[in-house]
Amino acid sequence: MDNVYTRRIAHLQAGIRKQRLDSLLVTSPHDWYYLTGFTGEAGVLLVEARGVTLITDGRFTVQAKEESPGLKVELQRECLYRTCGELLKRRRRRRVGFDAGQLTVAQMGSLKKATTGAVRLLDAGGMVLSLRTVKDAAELAAMRKAAALADQVMQAAMRLLKPGVRELEIADEIEYRMRKRGASGSAFESIVAFGERAALPHARPTAKRLKKGQLVVLDLGAILDRYCSDITRTVFVGTAPAKVRLWYHAVLEAQAAAIDAVAAGRTCGDVDAAARGVLAAHRLDQYFVHSTGHGLGLEVHENPRVAKGQKTLLASGNVVTIEPGVYVPGVGGIRIEDDVAVHRSGNEVLTRASREFIEL
Amino acid sequence: MDNVYTRRIAHLQAGIRKQRLDSLLVTSPHDWYYLTGFTGEAGVLLVEARGVTLITDGRFTVQAKEESPGLKVELQRECLYRTCGELLKRRRRRRVGFDAGQLTVAQMGSLKKATTGAVRLLDAGGMVLSLRTVKDAAELAAMRKAAALADQVMQAAMRLLKPGVRELEIADEIEYRMRKRGASGSAFESIVAFGERAALPHARPTAKRLKKGQLVVLDLGAILDRYCSDITRTVFVGTAPAKVRLWYHAVLEAQAAAIDAVAAGRTCGDVDAAARGVLAAHRLDQYFVHSTGHGLGLEVHENPRVAKGQKTLLASGNVVTIEPGVYVPGVGGIRIEDDVAVHRSGNEVLTRASREFIEL
Repeated sequence: MDNVYTRRIAHLQAGIRKQRLDSLLVTSPHDWYYLTGFTGEAGVLLVEARGVTLITDGRFTVQAKEESPGLKVELQRECLYRTCGELLKRRRRRRVGFDAGQLTVAQMGSLKKATTGAVRLLDAGGMVLSLRTVKDAAELAAMRKAAALADQVMQAAMRLLKPGVRELEIADEIEYRMRKRGASGSAFESIVAFGERAALPHARPTAKRLKKGQLVVLDLGAILDRYCSDITRTVFVGTAPAKVRLWYHAVLEAQAAAIDAVAAGRTCGDVDAAARGVLAAHRLDQYFVHSTGHGLGLEVHENPRVAKGQKTLLASGNVVTIEPGVYVPGVGGIRIEDDVAVHRSGNEVLTRASREFIEL
Repeated sequence: MDNVYTRRIAHLQAGIRKQRLDSLLVTSPHDWYYLTGFTGEAGVLLVEARGVTLITDGRFTVQAKEESPGLKVELQRECLYRTCGELLKRRRRRRVGFDAGQLTVAQMGSLKKATTGAVRLLDAGGMVLSLRTVKDAAELAAMRKAAALADQVMQAAMRLLKPGVRELEIADEIEYRMRKRGASGSAFESIVAFGERAALPHARPTAKRLKKGQLVVLDLGAILDRYCSDITRTVFVGTAPAKVRLWYHAVLEAQAAAIDAVAAGRTCGDVDAAARGVLAAHRLDQYFVHSTGHGLGLEVHENPRVAKGQKTLLASGNVVTIEPGVYVPGVGGIRIEDDVAVHRSGNEVLTRASREFIEL
């Protein structure tokens, strides 16, 4: 296996030893890609003190050996978790960790049946997820590229905002342009919200047409080489009323304060409070109805959560979104979002599209 | 609630009574959309003898009441399954069904903790899935439209097949054109496979360029008004060698035989055997490495499975794909796939793009 994978597995094995486990069942495709480079969608990865075994079906065995040459690959028979349980029993494992948030009751049933009480199954959820919060240099390089792609597509999407265009048309163009630039697709369903629909933080694009005098929220992200980006910009079509300008600059100020607070050793709650404090000073905090941000990586929502009261300490290598907003029902909404990497000292904003207030 | 939903719920309630359950936990978004029209992504639907309750979070409560006016909506507190368990206990339910293939060990833990032994939780997986295999008139109408859209996009994609074009470019155009015609997206990652890559049944599109003298497999499907379509065509770029023509006509003959066998009261295994028998007569059965087809509906892979030895009887209202193929490693592959609805007498092929052998 590649060095990077060997290193990640070694980290995980240290955690496995600490919890006195003989094996850990890795059951999320993102997790096993992170640990081995295997991109197949079905299987179980067994990480143990002295090796790593993938159990998968006939569709993926050749692919697994190509993508991850050092990996032991076992072919599953009829039932994946039965094969897995039999292997654990054959290897005389006693304490085996699994993720209770991922394993289904049926899979657990198969495991228990196959291990016939010889194996203790212990909830050890989140061990790989927690490693994944700290990105290495190669991951950060990939995330810079995914962010740059999102910047370009954001700029292209803004150029399409003419009165009469539909939300769905813009959303389709966003998807198309991401793919044209090498993305495997959107990291999530793009948000294109005109006018009062911009007041819904999770608006789905509709057939609604753009009119002069409307706010437009564009929230998009690409998956490039498996890593996600996530950016939001808000523009006004026409000349904005004074109130909208005030809101915009309050959100921008809140975002800047939160980005300033992103540093190794600060808590996620501190970062959230920085944004919330600025909006409170502008008496807009009641319109900020969600958290300030979330971790980003192989998945678009990862740890750490940047939310009220979160005690988690930021560490060098974390990547989080910072996305405060104000949402005024019936009027519209404003959100500004960027992706920020935590460095040993200071931070780095990966998305770079202009945050200045734009009137189209 | 709409009549169609009332009818589906009544069917499910009959099944619930038969299994002597007080409640059934419906935990798949496709299932609860099918039963209520609610399109939110998070929650649990509780179907009981005398009513239906949705437990969901603050993002979805307003949406649920709009989409499904007759629905009782309960706001979840901190933990969804704890709220659910407390409700079951308050209502003094004794026997509650759940789907062991969907519920995670952690969710089950929360349920058990909240019900403190007062409720028996019984595996009743697949009850809604089984209703979903029988499409009603409105569903068939939606699936005809999704199939027609796939036909149009297939034809458009074929027109783009010129030497020098890349697999990924074609895949991007397929996605774009589906959305332009109203699809919410692809039903699955489109397969665009040139030359020897066509020998891989699940090839992902790459940067490879098309050359003269190559087979091209195009496998695509759209989601339109939530229903899926799925079609495959294979063409040759240039004048095909005699061997390729023979293979093509063998696959076409196998597909026709399988489609002929699709009828209410026949087993799925019979349909599979019809395709396999024709290929065996051409001594090509060893190159047919997958099943003949699968059910299709709100999801791209549903029941029934059209595979070797399957005893499931086809029933009026089922929709299945029929997609035999031959895959010759190092040379290429040929697959022809259509969507077929089972009627009381006979069947209906929903996808209608020409199946004649095309040399571009």
